Amino acid sequence: MAENSSLSEYLTVATDVAKKAGEVIREGFYQTKHVEHKGSVDLVTETDKACEDLIFNHLKKHFPSHKFIGEETTAANGVTLLTDEPTWIVDPLDGTTNFVHGFPFVCVCIGLTIKKVPVVGVVYNPIMNELFTAIDGNGAFLNGNPIKVSSHCKLVECLLTTEAGTKRDKATLDATTNRINSLLYKVRSLRMGGSCALGLCGVACGRIDLFYEIGFGGPWDVAAAVVIVKEAGGVVFDP
Amino acid sequence: MAENSSLSEYLTVATDVAKKAGEVIREGFYQTKHVEHKGSVDLVTETDKACEDLIFNHLKKHFPSHKFIGEETTAANGVTLLTDEPTWIVDPLDGTTNFVHGFPFVCVCIGLTIKKVPVVGVVYNPIMNELFTAIDGNGAFLNGNPIKVSSHCKLVECLLTTEAGTKRDKATLDATTNRINSLLYKVRSLRMGGSCALGLCGVACGRIDLFYEIGFGGPWDVAAAVVIVKEAGGVVFDP
Repeated sequence: MAENSSLSEYLTVATDVAKKAGEVIREGFYQTKHVEHKGSVDLVTETDKACEDLIFNHLKKHFPSHKFIGEETTAANGVTLLTDEPTWIVDPLDGTTNFVHGFPFVCVCIGLTIKKVPVVGVVYNPIMNELFTAIDGNGAFLNGNPIKVSSHCKLVECLLTTEAGTKRDKATLDATTNRINSLLYKVRSLRMGGSCALGLCGVACGRIDLFYEIGFGGPWDVAAAVVIVKEAGGVVFDP
Repeated sequence: MAENSSLSEYLTVATDVAKKAGEVIREGFYQTKHVEHKGSVDLVTETDKACEDLIFNHLKKHFPSHKFIGEETTAANGVTLLTDEPTWIVDPLDGTTNFVHGFPFVCVCIGLTIKKVPVVGVVYNPIMNELFTAIDGNGAFLNGNPIKVSSHCKLVECLLTTEAGTKRDKATLDATTNRINSLLYKVRSLRMGGSCALGLCGVACGRIDLFYEIGFGGPWDVAAAVVIVKEAGGVVFDP
């Protein structure tokens, strides 16, 4: 495990570049977008690519020996194996469908793993100006203020969030809606926001009580946010 | 139909008091809330009642001859018949579950009907500082800027929003999830925000393409927002 002062430095650098990428996202959010289709319901934008370059270049300048895993570079170059080395795992724009439509739940996600454990997390929603941050062992914060998960312990008091995902085959859709059907009997209500990382950060700050997503995009959707949830007192697991 | 100058005056007064009620909502949003249960999944708060009093008192002072229909007074005093008289239809706090949980989609809704037709609409989300306004024949606005509905005309390009509602009987839940199942085959993705009025305003500003809700609370959930959707070029109907 790195010294705490190193983790603080990593967090500061990651926060700086998350805000810079956030400016790029904010500009694009209010403009007409040029959209490439990865599939009929999965979108990637020029902004996505520009932000990943911006973030990786900034982090590489500060931490040239570190490793990097990002959604866009992985899509282009194939899978990068996670090692014990300090590794930045980045989703430059989580919530690309929201971005394209102008729905305000979009964010930059920058996480750092050391010895394969996520230890630094930054999730920034530039539209709502909400910056979620955490480093291992030091608590979680929203715009600098400490946050914690909700204290609800009965399902009937819980606000659940999930996502519809991007797969549209019958088996997946039936499983998705059957799961929702079973859960709606038990919880107070259901939200779908369209961003995995902001769903997790919603749990971290107690806005929602539960979040699950099956078949999310990759480690870049969760690496940053899991640090934030855990440091806010929450639990994250892979069933 | 009232003169346009009258409608403008009505809008100005409604906007003023929507902002005042919004301040009350914003304060409560960030505090611990004292919640009364209307049912296990339907909540009403002190803030809800305080805002309805604030709004009705303000409107009555300016327009003593007008009629008033509000969620809280209707709950307390029974149904008020809609007449041809100018009638303010108010939901002081749409998205009460969101309010209680701290999920940022909450709003004040103030609509005015004349001859039973909604002609003035104000929907204000004080957490995101988004003020949607419209008067009949004059377009729709978000924070003073003109808005219009999206131009998507294929379902596969559409972001759909709906709500899970508050009923938890098997027939309603099965119908709800079967409907979602059928629609997910056709649309790009699904959002659930927890506010009927903000769902409609999301359509008005093109963030989402479609919204439906079955079994919403009452006319106060829609009276203001339908003016905004129609003036933004959208279509609203009751199937």
